[in-house]
Amino acid sequence: MEHSWWFYRSCIIHFISARQKIQIFSIWQNRFPVLPTGFYSELAAAHHIVLVTSLFEKRATGLYHNTAVVFDKDGSIAGKYRKMHIPDDPGFYEKFYFTPGDIGFEPIQTSIGKLGVLICWDQWYPEAARIMALKGAELLIYPTAIGWSLSDTKEEQMRQLNAWILSQRGHAVANGLPVISVNRVGHEIDPSGATSGILFWGNSFVAGPQGELLVQASNDRAENFVVEIDMERNENVRRWWPFLRDRRIDAYEGITKRFLD
Amino acid sequence: MEHSWWFYRSCIIHFISARQKIQIFSIWQNRFPVLPTGFYSELAAAHHIVLVTSLFEKRATGLYHNTAVVFDKDGSIAGKYRKMHIPDDPGFYEKFYFTPGDIGFEPIQTSIGKLGVLICWDQWYPEAARIMALKGAELLIYPTAIGWSLSDTKEEQMRQLNAWILSQRGHAVANGLPVISVNRVGHEIDPSGATSGILFWGNSFVAGPQGELLVQASNDRAENFVVEIDMERNENVRRWWPFLRDRRIDAYEGITKRFLD
Repeated sequence: MEHSWWFYRSCIIHFISARQKIQIFSIWQNRFPVLPTGFYSELAAAHHIVLVTSLFEKRATGLYHNTAVVFDKDGSIAGKYRKMHIPDDPGFYEKFYFTPGDIGFEPIQTSIGKLGVLICWDQWYPEAARIMALKGAELLIYPTAIGWSLSDTKEEQMRQLNAWILSQRGHAVANGLPVISVNRVGHEIDPSGATSGILFWGNSFVAGPQGELLVQASNDRAENFVVEIDMERNENVRRWWPFLRDRRIDAYEGITKRFLD
Repeated sequence: MEHSWWFYRSCIIHFISARQKIQIFSIWQNRFPVLPTGFYSELAAAHHIVLVTSLFEKRATGLYHNTAVVFDKDGSIAGKYRKMHIPDDPGFYEKFYFTPGDIGFEPIQTSIGKLGVLICWDQWYPEAARIMALKGAELLIYPTAIGWSLSDTKEEQMRQLNAWILSQRGHAVANGLPVISVNRVGHEIDPSGATSGILFWGNSFVAGPQGELLVQASNDRAENFVVEIDMERNENVRRWWPFLRDRRIDAYEGITKRFLD
């Protein structure tokens, strides 16, 4: 069973990355209505694809989520995921705009498989990937907007990029699942001048269930890829390396604590 | 604060890797008494080092553990860790010989820091690394014996080696901790002839708290390294990337389940 995937990352990132002004809410609400079912639904149906989109969800006045909505081949909404882990890096004001998701780590059932859709900062958390896997996700998908601060050295920038890639490839290995990570490119200035802005580092990639890279994009231009993922390999890799068999669930309780001091 | 480390991996691996015979118990018990305090204790004290050793622990007749014992600079035993996750790969008969550890994931306090000592198969489990981090481990250490089956293709062998490395570098990133992984080299035949034996792949490495490689050994010869680890970097990396701040401990309970079906 092999599938082709299309992914879309909305330019919501322009908004969360470098500006923190109250009036921006209304601007972006107009551009990203609660569920843009019309456009994306029609796109999914027209191309007969499962489409993972990312948007600014207004749930109520003063209550907003960073949300991914998945459309199925017939244009229907297969499900949504609300970003669970919310960061607050310099230049990113996500804790100001977004409330953390309350749906939990629930894979989304589509006509071509069960998708473990997570968003950006979630990608640093092995717990998120693991719970998706335990709930039967057949692959992990991370729409992302991450980049460099130009004030960092080149060496530091490379450490950060590499850490980002290997963290997610690590989730592939730990769970015997393919991982798709989609990150934007481009420089975003900081209108306040407080920082040098963010140079989004691209490098979108697809990894197989042993973390092996199947494709990796550039760091400076938008690209489209059609990547074939052999889902039979998941089955074989999990038989060779049956990590799920040996988990010490009797000894993991501490993970639900903030710190064990 | 910078420290130098010495690590020792006992040849217990000869025993667990390719033979599964009852009489081997008594042979190896003689070679690896319950706690070889004499030799290793003296070595640690003589060189004024913290020494991580690995051994076959006879806890009672018919009850054996794969155990790491840590000696402090004065030759005293700082603590021990009993391997929690026990595999049963072809060529490895660990589930036959060893009972899973019952001490849990407890870092070992030494005079130069708190060590998150884990063993081999544990390295595939993000849960183990995370709990060590939550209990205050300042670095993670994995004495290991892993290798290739010669019946696999070169491509598969490389995927496995890379998966092994990036899984552990992933733990470094997720927890903002250095990782030291020590793996043996050499070919071990299978006396039964059932398999082609195991070619242990070496590639011991040390990674910093962003998963950056500080040193990596060859795959075919024993080597000694003195690696300086800048422990101040842990502090800075965790401030830049404060993953512990944003963990959704309210939503991780499922991790203590076998599967969420």
